[in-house]
Amino acid sequence: MQRTNWSAPEPVFRRRLRDRFGTDDAAAVATVVDVRGSAYRRPGAKMLFEGTAATGSITAGCLETDLADASRRVRESGEPELRSYDLTSDESETWGLGVGCEGVVTVLLEPLSERYRPVVEAFGDRRHLGVLTVLADETGPLEPGSRAYYRPETGTLEPRDGSTRDAWGGQTLLERADELVARGRPAVTTQTSDGRSLRVFVDVVEPVPELVVFGSGHDVGPVVHAGTDAGFRVTVVGFRGGVDMAARFVDADRTLTTAPARIDERLDLTERTYAVVMTHNFVDDCLTVERLLASPAPYIGLLGPTDRYEKLVAELDPSPGTDLERVYAPVGLDLGGGSPHQIAQSIAAELLAVRNGKTPTHLRTADGPIHERPDP
Amino acid sequence: MQRTNWSAPEPVFRRRLRDRFGTDDAAAVATVVDVRGSAYRRPGAKMLFEGTAATGSITAGCLETDLADASRRVRESGEPELRSYDLTSDESETWGLGVGCEGVVTVLLEPLSERYRPVVEAFGDRRHLGVLTVLADETGPLEPGSRAYYRPETGTLEPRDGSTRDAWGGQTLLERADELVARGRPAVTTQTSDGRSLRVFVDVVEPVPELVVFGSGHDVGPVVHAGTDAGFRVTVVGFRGGVDMAARFVDADRTLTTAPARIDERLDLTERTYAVVMTHNFVDDCLTVERLLASPAPYIGLLGPTDRYEKLVAELDPSPGTDLERVYAPVGLDLGGGSPHQIAQSIAAELLAVRNGKTPTHLRTADGPIHERPDP
Repeated sequence: MQRTNWSAPEPVFRRRLRDRFGTDDAAAVATVVDVRGSAYRRPGAKMLFEGTAATGSITAGCLETDLADASRRVRESGEPELRSYDLTSDESETWGLGVGCEGVVTVLLEPLSERYRPVVEAFGDRRHLGVLTVLADETGPLEPGSRAYYRPETGTLEPRDGSTRDAWGGQTLLERADELVARGRPAVTTQTSDGRSLRVFVDVVEPVPELVVFGSGHDVGPVVHAGTDAGFRVTVVGFRGGVDMAARFVDADRTLTTAPARIDERLDLTERTYAVVMTHNFVDDCLTVERLLASPAPYIGLLGPTDRYEKLVAELDPSPGTDLERVYAPVGLDLGGGSPHQIAQSIAAELLAVRNGKTPTHLRTADGPIHERPDP
Repeated sequence: MQRTNWSAPEPVFRRRLRDRFGTDDAAAVATVVDVRGSAYRRPGAKMLFEGTAATGSITAGCLETDLADASRRVRESGEPELRSYDLTSDESETWGLGVGCEGVVTVLLEPLSERYRPVVEAFGDRRHLGVLTVLADETGPLEPGSRAYYRPETGTLEPRDGSTRDAWGGQTLLERADELVARGRPAVTTQTSDGRSLRVFVDVVEPVPELVVFGSGHDVGPVVHAGTDAGFRVTVVGFRGGVDMAARFVDADRTLTTAPARIDERLDLTERTYAVVMTHNFVDDCLTVERLLASPAPYIGLLGPTDRYEKLVAELDPSPGTDLERVYAPVGLDLGGGSPHQIAQSIAAELLAVRNGKTPTHLRTADGPIHERPDP
């Protein structure tokens, strides 16, 4: 649960990428490769540039203007480009939009072409993917920007851009890639052997966590919205006909109507499934929680007061081995506030905390750095 | 800090109310008066009905259809109407949109006419207001639905609908209204004297808390958005020209561009001002925090790592009496997640917790009921 790619792109980025991939319009993807300093997102953060539009974020506005220019060249040439920015000189220096930035940042720009297909596909399915990009290979055969994909399920490397498997060196790089993918930590790694020094950026694509909201009331919409902002792929499940689910929950990735008894057939409940149960119907809630408890879902949030949950547990009479620790009832963090949006925010905050293995507290009293530091 | 009207309407409701008030189109406001049961918002929750559209929320979909019908009558007649729904019979009973509801709920419907003006004005300014509505006065002169306003600054009662000051009874009702307004707790109160039993619903309108975001980077937009959802009136302050603030932050209630030294002139910093400082510029952050520390603002969130904040405090060298407990640096709750939206959610969660005097924790481990119970 603690393994999280801090730089996982936001839903809006993933959707836009999917929509644009394979169209005739040229687009380019910018990915943070290396960063030392403030006002930047971590390695792996991404932006999509197309025409005059951009989606996603990699800085608070420091480099976007320059990157937009560079992305035009990349879209025209079809060739990747590595750009480094050194803004260590003076913190009062402003760049572009007047947001003070300092430090050194390296960004990879590449065309949204066939070479990027495995990334687009990985965002859409449930597999992990390592994305290897050569930064420097001075005495070796690989050009900067060369690409290979690493598949952790099989431990295989898929070279692209005409590079060969041998050119990517020995087993050490694969082991390092495997480790970074397993830790969800995009980073630069340097492999040295026989006088060759190969610098590679290993990016990590992880399956997107799934939020399944059970309910169709007016309080569901804000939860869909907040869950999406929190980075979840959201499915809304209704148990009654007569509601146009897709029209009501336009922000959801998917909506479906079924019966509580058929949840298992219609949904693939995995260890990446976060569930929020808010049908407002006691029997439906009961049946739903029962099915979820039988699944490996790590988070089962239940709307409603504690005594209602106690009644529900008594009704379910779960077998002794059942892990009720996964049930968060009443759902959400204790933030006060009773509007649907405020409740949704308290649910999203709890989803993030559980997903990231955090004990919710003020950051100012939390131990350690806000983000784990990138590897040196 | 702990005094909060749990049922304060959401920003979208307040805006819509302001836009519709005084137009020729008839609209009606529904307000929850009394509630026993689940799936309902607390007393004071409101919805605006106009034509086929509705704004706000008072249930998860239980009564909206019936209320929409009733609101049509109220808009046509111009007369208020009290409606009670008893859905205790059977929890599997569904009503309207298929969301199980149980309990008894009473709703006041009233036209959005001149009689409602003090409420519309109170949402827009910074005064508290008590809104008194007669539910029953069987042996007295007041009709159900009769209205008076209570002004806590002056302790005065303003009768409406042709009722007289005397008809509203003695000092006891005013004292009770004063208490409910002070506690931010809309509730029904019964005053009995000389054989008269007067039942009055006291609604509470509170000043909306203000969020001021200092910064103009791309990371500000999500904070504006999340702060609005959290129920704050949001102002964005930029320190550099060249950025079309209003166009960039369309969700904000207000945007302005100034210099850090002129914050005090341009902004009214009060004990209801929550500030988030995210200029990404060390000098601007310093000057802004300095001004905020000299104000009564109860919350000063500062983006950036702890060591940067320590450098800032060293730079400011605040006088011994300065209350640095108000500074939340790094800003936000420790939820993990590094995308702009996730960071904004952690900030909104902290804003809610501080505003509501809550120690952030999972609701399932928090003491006491989620919402304070309405008075019996």
